Amino acid sequence: MKVEYINPFIQSVCDLFDTMLSSKATRCGVGLANGGLNTRDIVAIIGLSGEARGMVALSFPTQTALAMVGRMLGTELHIVDETVYDGLAELVNMVAGSSKAKFASFVSTPIELSLPTVIRGSDFSVNHPSKATWLDVPFTSDLGTFNLRVTFELNRVKGVTV
Amino acid sequence: MKVEYINPFIQSVCDLFDTMLSSKATRCGVGLANGGLNTRDIVAIIGLSGEARGMVALSFPTQTALAMVGRMLGTELHIVDETVYDGLAELVNMVAGSSKAKFASFVSTPIELSLPTVIRGSDFSVNHPSKATWLDVPFTSDLGTFNLRVTFELNRVKGVTV
Repeated sequence: MKVEYINPFIQSVCDLFDTMLSSKATRCGVGLANGGLNTRDIVAIIGLSGEARGMVALSFPTQTALAMVGRMLGTELHIVDETVYDGLAELVNMVAGSSKAKFASFVSTPIELSLPTVIRGSDFSVNHPSKATWLDVPFTSDLGTFNLRVTFELNRVKGVTV
Repeated sequence: MKVEYINPFIQSVCDLFDTMLSSKATRCGVGLANGGLNTRDIVAIIGLSGEARGMVALSFPTQTALAMVGRMLGTELHIVDETVYDGLAELVNMVAGSSKAKFASFVSTPIELSLPTVIRGSDFSVNHPSKATWLDVPFTSDLGTFNLRVTFELNRVKGVTV
């Protein structure tokens, strides 16, 4: 997986903050995710399929998740309930959906999205098959810190060597 | 989501046990999954997209997960490591992949699969957006109990009212 493939996803996170959350997300680097993702309280994931087959994950501490969904809904939230799960599912759906269009130059048919899922707990890890590479992008914002993780395999690439 | 849409997935689990695990899985009913899925130690999930957009999950107690991957690899496993994650990812990939073909009569273009992900922990729940319906199918087998969960929305259905 080439590092430049992460850029549409990073740009989509920044656009989401700009347009939906009236805030600004700042990227703090890009790295390979080694091992399972287990540093956050809540992870929202969505599958990508078609020419690019993979997963997009947004992982949040509880406070960031409450602040982001609260800002999106224009209210203050204090507990993680179904409203928050729905909000986080919609956020990862929007990031992946917006990335589809930005990713169009790499593929000849659009990427398709699965339904989002939200995992919450005090002790869990999200693990990927060992042959898959995940890129991890930490962000800061006035709503708190969070991470974007993306993995995919390009099956049929338009004029690009994977 | 119609209950009959679950049948290709149930059949695929039974086929997998028959062909890959030299075992027999017995379905113990089908029900609506209410609320988050938090009764198992390990969950392997994969996204579905295209005309049917959703997720397929297999959830296991640790002992069942070790027994299933051990049987698949022809060895005895005692700890959950990368080999087990890879095995469980492959199992859910096979169930979803095999269901694609069986599901063909409901859709006009094949369903596409995302990459699988494996979640493990002692305290976590897997939550779906409140508008999505998940069907839950408990199974028993000589390798232990486990659950199949499936959700999807059919976007464009061939001669079928959703």
